[in-house]
Amino acid sequence: MKVAVVGIGLIGGSFALALKRFGLADCVMGVESSEQHAKKALELGLVDEIISLDRAAAECDLIAVATPVNTIPAIVTKLLNRIGDNQVVIDMGSTKGELCELISQHRNRARFVATHPMWGTEHSGPEAAEKEAFTGRVVVFCERAQSAEDAVKVVENIYTTLGMKIIDMGAEEHDTHTAYVSHISHITSFALALTVLEKEREEEHIFDLAGGGFESTVRLAKSSADTWIPILLENKYNVLDVLREHIHQLQIMRRMIERDDSEGLREAMNKANSIKRILK
Amino acid sequence: MKVAVVGIGLIGGSFALALKRFGLADCVMGVESSEQHAKKALELGLVDEIISLDRAAAECDLIAVATPVNTIPAIVTKLLNRIGDNQVVIDMGSTKGELCELISQHRNRARFVATHPMWGTEHSGPEAAEKEAFTGRVVVFCERAQSAEDAVKVVENIYTTLGMKIIDMGAEEHDTHTAYVSHISHITSFALALTVLEKEREEEHIFDLAGGGFESTVRLAKSSADTWIPILLENKYNVLDVLREHIHQLQIMRRMIERDDSEGLREAMNKANSIKRILK
Repeated sequence: MKVAVVGIGLIGGSFALALKRFGLADCVMGVESSEQHAKKALELGLVDEIISLDRAAAECDLIAVATPVNTIPAIVTKLLNRIGDNQVVIDMGSTKGELCELISQHRNRARFVATHPMWGTEHSGPEAAEKEAFTGRVVVFCERAQSAEDAVKVVENIYTTLGMKIIDMGAEEHDTHTAYVSHISHITSFALALTVLEKEREEEHIFDLAGGGFESTVRLAKSSADTWIPILLENKYNVLDVLREHIHQLQIMRRMIERDDSEGLREAMNKANSIKRILK
Repeated sequence: MKVAVVGIGLIGGSFALALKRFGLADCVMGVESSEQHAKKALELGLVDEIISLDRAAAECDLIAVATPVNTIPAIVTKLLNRIGDNQVVIDMGSTKGELCELISQHRNRARFVATHPMWGTEHSGPEAAEKEAFTGRVVVFCERAQSAEDAVKVVENIYTTLGMKIIDMGAEEHDTHTAYVSHISHITSFALALTVLEKEREEEHIFDLAGGGFESTVRLAKSSADTWIPILLENKYNVLDVLREHIHQLQIMRRMIERDDSEGLREAMNKANSIKRILK
């Protein structure tokens, strides 16, 4: 199978590596608008050749779009305009509502499969690509019924071979759940980094004292603005909803600390502890 | 050297293991008010014997107090009441202001060294003790000038042998910085877990989708209420100060998302990214 990856960053680059590692593609082509990223992707051997979007649409069996989410609908539409009945297009983005609506009436809609592999790190660009990505994680398929059966089979085979567990969701449902479980974590982490940078003028102390769990809660604050601004704005209503709740929870904890309300804090922490049961 | 550890949980238990591993103590005794923890600590070989606080004061060269911070001042005072000029008491707690004030005029103040090794995990109890704890981390000594030189030397030798870097701070200064760098992370994590538990009624989805960084930001929400309520309340004014700033930062991000203010978000995220430079 000949595959093209559009956008060879953390996700696209890791996907290209995985396709090769598992023998899923004879050759992996890259489509990349940044010359610097294109050069780096070739250097690192993530892709065999850099080609245009038109060539990808003309030559490749599978085209995977892994660019920032605000650019995905236009790229997917252009690809669907050009491909034939034996080709498949997928996206790997973190939001799905807008995308699935915009392409819903496209003549070639059935050749598209909306996927979101639930893997990522705080790093970005082709250098961030990881060989062992995806394996053991969940991948969400959205609106599977809108895709042709043969197209779904091709994509299922790939993700299953990569060792991923496939789950199904509607596009809106997906965006709600990812706001809760992924997007809010990034906002929290950005805000926490800003808080500490604001309050802690002595950088040396941040460095010295960061053993106490700070590093893990603030890790995501290293994430790329290019990736995350489009995600937060595309998923604005869900993100604002969960952000409102999060600020509310912090205000409750603040009031309990102000009032030395040990019992209230104990109840809240015990409830928060139950996340243990869910995560492991 | 004969050492007693008072409170054989995550920190005390790990300290006991470290003392043995590095050959720093001929025998490590445990003082533990929970029968269950005492039994477990013996079973796990963390300590050689369980003894009373009085026996620890009578027999041990060094007594390390690693109980919840609200209980430390009374325990340290009782130990200082009983020990002689060749014995040393240390605490390993996360707050120092209240403790250092309460014991400041004790006749035996010089036999006490206030220390805070900057290591921990979200687990608690004797089962949480780790062999490789402390090494490579920072330990803060507070108000070193109030301790006798020979007492400081004993304690310095221990932490240095464990591979820790010692830094000095005043007690108030310590509490301010740890509020910024450690205590706020725990509040954020607890509040994030509560947010998601509140919004996400379908636990299965938390479990399935938690790949997106959620797990690392919410890890500290598994921490023990017994440990953290005393820390947050003892360090109340600093904690409230930084919590106020954190809520303010979240409100700013919320307004930027509401207004689709990409430029504002970019500026904020780029600033947050600079935490990279400080942490590594």
